[in-house]
Amino acid sequence: MQIAILLYDRFTALDAIGPFDTLGRLSGAEVVFVSERPGPVRTDGGALALVADKGLDEVTRPDIVLVPGGPHPEREMANPAVLDWLRAVDAGSAWTTSVCTGSLLLAAAGLLDGRRATSHWMYLDRLAEFGAAPTGERVVYDGKYVTAAGVSSGIDMGLGLLGRIAGDDFAQAVQLMTEYDPQPPYDAGSPEKAPAPLVAMLRGHHLPGEGVTGSR
Amino acid sequence: MQIAILLYDRFTALDAIGPFDTLGRLSGAEVVFVSERPGPVRTDGGALALVADKGLDEVTRPDIVLVPGGPHPEREMANPAVLDWLRAVDAGSAWTTSVCTGSLLLAAAGLLDGRRATSHWMYLDRLAEFGAAPTGERVVYDGKYVTAAGVSSGIDMGLGLLGRIAGDDFAQAVQLMTEYDPQPPYDAGSPEKAPAPLVAMLRGHHLPGEGVTGSR
Repeated sequence: MQIAILLYDRFTALDAIGPFDTLGRLSGAEVVFVSERPGPVRTDGGALALVADKGLDEVTRPDIVLVPGGPHPEREMANPAVLDWLRAVDAGSAWTTSVCTGSLLLAAAGLLDGRRATSHWMYLDRLAEFGAAPTGERVVYDGKYVTAAGVSSGIDMGLGLLGRIAGDDFAQAVQLMTEYDPQPPYDAGSPEKAPAPLVAMLRGHHLPGEGVTGSR
Repeated sequence: MQIAILLYDRFTALDAIGPFDTLGRLSGAEVVFVSERPGPVRTDGGALALVADKGLDEVTRPDIVLVPGGPHPEREMANPAVLDWLRAVDAGSAWTTSVCTGSLLLAAAGLLDGRRATSHWMYLDRLAEFGAAPTGERVVYDGKYVTAAGVSSGIDMGLGLLGRIAGDDFAQAVQLMTEYDPQPPYDAGSPEKAPAPLVAMLRGHHLPGEGVTGSR
């Protein structure tokens, strides 16, 4: 069982690491980080690089494909090398998955046409432009396609998919080992729950007390 | 404001990335990944490397220090270079923090003597051996020392600390941007909630249906 996690310039680290440290604990799985060019790949703010050990041409038959998101998905959505790779590996995958705006890459590759899917709450409209049927659920299954909402939702997706593949006992063991007993200090994790002025501010790409988001 | 995140061989990725993608979003903060030797540092299972851009000697006055954990903390707990660095940067830090068994490194450096602290649930007893007063809370504040429980708890710590530093509005904005509205598929994230046989199995370092844990 091979799990391929796609990296690309300015992806969001937690999108990739949430599933990595849950689903990636599948026993016997080989996890491989892959990018257009092997080597360090910088995250959205530039402060961190994760190493892609393999190039796209070296990973041709993964069982699970995972595409993280980032605040600037447009470049990869128009990158033929990435889109061709997604289509090629999807043809042989057991599961094709994404976190956050990673679903826009799958959609741009034509893989979510007519399918129920989700994305970061600020990008749900974009999914529809590519023929998908966006939903506000946190994790959406449509056949072998599994899409998760923004950033941290990849942990919930990772555990849920682990349960389907390895059974509930194993998934619960990983939940306990990662001590995933969330106690957020606020209840502002979705646009339905957060204060309306805050939602409006973020839709305008501003954070409280400062400039434009995503420019860390 | 500089946030230094320590990397060392076989750390757990999510321990570092949970706080990175929450607390690290602090506006104006410089986040720096630091290790004994700059360059790629492999995570616990070996499938991934994060790049430490700086060596210990290049990061001498961080405002916030974050120490992630891993399944094998013993080596760093006996590494004078790391322990000396922790003591040196702690002398000037505003906050000294850890996730998971990272607290054992702080404790081994003598920084948690007599302090309330936490760690991964399987390692709470070890904390007491180093003079700390272990508690089962998910995030523990004792003055400027903030310790979080296992792996995923670093997200809760990151948002809570962000609130204390930048205010509740900003922290809630980051919670909404990271869509941290957890919906775990199981309720097995703590030893109190998980099935007792599963807790016993993990305490014996076994996972359901396979061998020893932490050997991914």
